[in-house]
Amino acid sequence: MKKIAILTFVGFFFYACNLKKEPNPEEFFTKKAKEEQISNFGIVIHGGAGTILKENMSDSLEAAYKKILEIAIKTGYEILENGGSSLDAIAKTINVMEDSPLFNAGKGAVFTNQGTNELDASVMDGSNLDAGAVSGVKKIKNPINLAIKVMTHSPHVMLSGEGAEQFALEQGFEFMDSSYFYTESRFQSLQKIKEAKKSSLTHDAKSAFEDPYIKDYKFGTVGAAALDKHGNLAAGTSTGGMTNKKWNRIGDAPIIGAGTYANNATCAVSSTGWGEFFIRAVVAHDISALMEYKGMTLKEAAVDVIQKKVPALGGDGGIIAIDKGGNMVMEFNTEGMYRASMNAKGELVIAIYKD
Amino acid sequence: MKKIAILTFVGFFFYACNLKKEPNPEEFFTKKAKEEQISNFGIVIHGGAGTILKENMSDSLEAAYKKILEIAIKTGYEILENGGSSLDAIAKTINVMEDSPLFNAGKGAVFTNQGTNELDASVMDGSNLDAGAVSGVKKIKNPINLAIKVMTHSPHVMLSGEGAEQFALEQGFEFMDSSYFYTESRFQSLQKIKEAKKSSLTHDAKSAFEDPYIKDYKFGTVGAAALDKHGNLAAGTSTGGMTNKKWNRIGDAPIIGAGTYANNATCAVSSTGWGEFFIRAVVAHDISALMEYKGMTLKEAAVDVIQKKVPALGGDGGIIAIDKGGNMVMEFNTEGMYRASMNAKGELVIAIYKD
Repeated sequence: MKKIAILTFVGFFFYACNLKKEPNPEEFFTKKAKEEQISNFGIVIHGGAGTILKENMSDSLEAAYKKILEIAIKTGYEILENGGSSLDAIAKTINVMEDSPLFNAGKGAVFTNQGTNELDASVMDGSNLDAGAVSGVKKIKNPINLAIKVMTHSPHVMLSGEGAEQFALEQGFEFMDSSYFYTESRFQSLQKIKEAKKSSLTHDAKSAFEDPYIKDYKFGTVGAAALDKHGNLAAGTSTGGMTNKKWNRIGDAPIIGAGTYANNATCAVSSTGWGEFFIRAVVAHDISALMEYKGMTLKEAAVDVIQKKVPALGGDGGIIAIDKGGNMVMEFNTEGMYRASMNAKGELVIAIYKD
Repeated sequence: MKKIAILTFVGFFFYACNLKKEPNPEEFFTKKAKEEQISNFGIVIHGGAGTILKENMSDSLEAAYKKILEIAIKTGYEILENGGSSLDAIAKTINVMEDSPLFNAGKGAVFTNQGTNELDASVMDGSNLDAGAVSGVKKIKNPINLAIKVMTHSPHVMLSGEGAEQFALEQGFEFMDSSYFYTESRFQSLQKIKEAKKSSLTHDAKSAFEDPYIKDYKFGTVGAAALDKHGNLAAGTSTGGMTNKKWNRIGDAPIIGAGTYANNATCAVSSTGWGEFFIRAVVAHDISALMEYKGMTLKEAAVDVIQKKVPALGGDGGIIAIDKGGNMVMEFNTEGMYRASMNAKGELVIAIYKD
């Protein structure tokens, strides 16, 4: 409050001093640029990539997805519009998707081979390169909030399993019963994939057409990236991982550099795809590095990584990202990606399929 | 065997055809370049960085460290010299250090807050960007071998905790009793750090002068990077993590891009340092990206990341790395780093302190 009072006073002082001055073109230009920077904000989100085809989707389900994507992005957008932080915006936006059973994160997470739900999440603050991540938590309603708490209230970046839950308990997080995460459709997906494995069919051929939600067992994640009015970038990712995953598998979502990366010097990125390939290609950091060291635009860097490098390894998926100038991309090499973006002008894009 | 027979036959055929030809300078040059490439191999290793000062080290302990570093690097070197793979070389070299109680990896790992040993490791094959990692395993003698098995025998890159051990069991790994990992000095380090915490002393001031081994609670890892005669790079890292770690903390060692990265297009890197900062700076991949996208040499890239970027965040530690041309670096910003390198000429360097 004291700071604001001082700033207001200083601001008024300069205003008073300049009252009678003629407008100076150079000053005007500087002021204009500053205003443009301040007004340049935006948020972009994804709800998973995969074999999402129009012919497999009912109109009502499509409408339900679009509705939640809109609620989610507008939640973060309002925070940004009111001068809130990109970190707060991506967290609240991701919370909406975590709380929806439609997405593979929080409620609605896919099932592991053991029939449990193991959740991963990560977050990065582009202003100071601070980061937090959790993997394999089973009782946390909003894993992205726990990742943020790891970042802000622990000396660590990444905690896992029961240890991460012990930390959550110490920080006052509420524990959810495993039934909270149960959704019938996800449980049926697990059964189908297990049956498909038994009958030696390839998972893709079988599961792609039977699961009414995201069509691939290896996909589905939610994420958001935002630029706020203060010029700060942030990104976050939250997931239930891969259906039928075994051996406490950790995918790219909780890995800083692979699933999430943010740096005010370049961009903020959240990934969704076949996690193993995204880890090996260090996808999120690679996009940032191509911009910073090779002078690529965000779009060029995203195309290079998602359309060339990841497919060259044999992987697929997508990313959403926003750069320090407010430019946004939603790049994927799968049939579809649940996605939305909203820029400073309030222009809203919501899309699911390729075109 | 069939392949070898065919190759031998084809080789002999070409040899016979060329017997009476005059030597062509261009052919000679090509052959020479090829031989040079083939003869250019090397291996570089670390056994942890930290406040390692001559005045805190007895002559006998120093000699013991140097002896193990020499045995370790010569193990990998011999494999490379005989035409073996860089992957095999780094694995066998790391095994020697994992089996020694002197290093914080395998036997000799530091203790967690709960008095257990939780081991992490990762590996990356630069020829195909394949990778494997494990975190939080408690019963595996050589975690680097399990990381390799995850890479070669699972569809995943990273497994953790009991799940990773279940996978190990299925793959025929022997389980060690927890007593195998117990070393008195590491256990005493835990007690000292806990006492120091109680008496509110800073950990660095207290533990740096009391622990006869690596002097910082947050350090100590082993790693290796190698280039083989086939032009393939590989890197691996193995650690017990941070003394007194809680909440199943995961450091940089098992994170592809942070603790380990290898890419035939650039270099192979293994990190050792304050893991949280190495994750946030995506250290290993950043060094590769600076080479690939900005045209830096390995040395320039390593200096940029270890002497500028990591300290700017407030972190410290070091890396060892080798590039596709066989150039090696051992870069650190701490008082010391257990390290060794051996190039194609058989030149051996073993060092501990800064100069």
